[in-house]
Amino acid sequence: MRYSLLAGGKRVRPVLCLAACEMVGGDESLALPMACATEMIHTMSLIHDDLPCMDNDDLRRGLPTNHKKYGEDTAILAGDALLSFSFEHVAVRTPKTVSPDRVVRAIAELGSAVGSAGLVAGQIVDIASEGDEDDLEYIHIHKTARLLEAAVVCGAILGGADDESVERARRYSRCVGLLFQVVDDILDVTKSSEELGKTAGKDLASDKATYPKLLGLEGARRFAAELVDRANGELAGFDPAKAAPLYHFANYIATRQN
Amino acid sequence: MRYSLLAGGKRVRPVLCLAACEMVGGDESLALPMACATEMIHTMSLIHDDLPCMDNDDLRRGLPTNHKKYGEDTAILAGDALLSFSFEHVAVRTPKTVSPDRVVRAIAELGSAVGSAGLVAGQIVDIASEGDEDDLEYIHIHKTARLLEAAVVCGAILGGADDESVERARRYSRCVGLLFQVVDDILDVTKSSEELGKTAGKDLASDKATYPKLLGLEGARRFAAELVDRANGELAGFDPAKAAPLYHFANYIATRQN
Repeated sequence: MRYSLLAGGKRVRPVLCLAACEMVGGDESLALPMACATEMIHTMSLIHDDLPCMDNDDLRRGLPTNHKKYGEDTAILAGDALLSFSFEHVAVRTPKTVSPDRVVRAIAELGSAVGSAGLVAGQIVDIASEGDEDDLEYIHIHKTARLLEAAVVCGAILGGADDESVERARRYSRCVGLLFQVVDDILDVTKSSEELGKTAGKDLASDKATYPKLLGLEGARRFAAELVDRANGELAGFDPAKAAPLYHFANYIATRQN
Repeated sequence: MRYSLLAGGKRVRPVLCLAACEMVGGDESLALPMACATEMIHTMSLIHDDLPCMDNDDLRRGLPTNHKKYGEDTAILAGDALLSFSFEHVAVRTPKTVSPDRVVRAIAELGSAVGSAGLVAGQIVDIASEGDEDDLEYIHIHKTARLLEAAVVCGAILGGADDESVERARRYSRCVGLLFQVVDDILDVTKSSEELGKTAGKDLASDKATYPKLLGLEGARRFAAELVDRANGELAGFDPAKAAPLYHFANYIATRQN
């Protein structure tokens, strides 16, 4: 569990969760257990997706994948424990100043991002897909965007947001979620394995559907720029100083190099 | 998910959860989502434990195991989705008449039964064990007793129990949890595969630690009888009519034939 959770990574989901909490006026401590939970779930999905019976990846974040290091049995169980612990951690560690009703709502939101309407649905279609455009969109929404959305929405809920602010945060996160995958696909065809810390060109070599394959490299870049604008448009209703981290985050995601 | 969840089974955990809820004076509807959640988690642990890299079982409840029917990738993901959905289901479906504070406490209890201090810990030791007595106890506590305990304790919490009643319910469940495994081990050496609906004699053929191996068949039977008495002793403080289902349940577990 520690090997994969603490192997680095961009911590995109936790950062978004804390930023959303602060944007709606909450102290970041209110969403810190949830921020950790989103990273545990992301890590669990990487461990299971890397297994030989799934994507069969040997390298992740510049290190051997979990099953290469510890064996398949331990890797499956490490993922299971991370998934379970993520919910437990939110239930046990969220500060008592947050209304329990908000904790229950956030747990429901987190759960819906993982199961048969979330990450798992995306991976099931990914395994079966032959790479057409509908599959591509479905896979990206479920494998990437849903958990990013849950991170932002849960941060807003735990930070004390009213319903309208929660929904504005949700729309922002949907744009950023899609943006994240478009940029990932672009980097896969433009960077080396060393620069990425994972096997580059893998999507191209396989039948996997990607945005550059569907839109061309320049088309994918234009789509990314459009998504940044739409995401930041949703932040207009918030205090600009408090929304600044999420505003700059969308730009960071668009311009990241690994 | 449906194939394994709806393949039958004794529904021990849900029954215990609902009975505990009613014992402390709650309506069973208060604990129904949690009862379902405990069965989802139990099913998930069976699916993952049956995988080729774990116990490599082909038969479960008289049917092909999940990975034999759907492939390893789908089996792993079905387990992941069941685990995630169990928490989501409790958060979304527990009646609003239950205080959200109790829902959060129950989710924490459920999570602690699954992760690296629960089911997963038991399976990790099971995989590595060479069958000595300390390992046997550790494995049974974590793979069987902890989830039974969580089912009973969560039922009591959601039913509105005070702290003392929750702890009495916990002690009852610890005896029943151990009892359940002792009887399982006895049945493995005394029944055929057809009677059990799973591969019989498997524990004997492998290096796996069992109570009949350690205590002898008669010693294991005496231990089971002692556990029934201790379990039912914990119920003395409750309304006898409301505690009757749990009282008879301990006897049922002790005398079950498959």
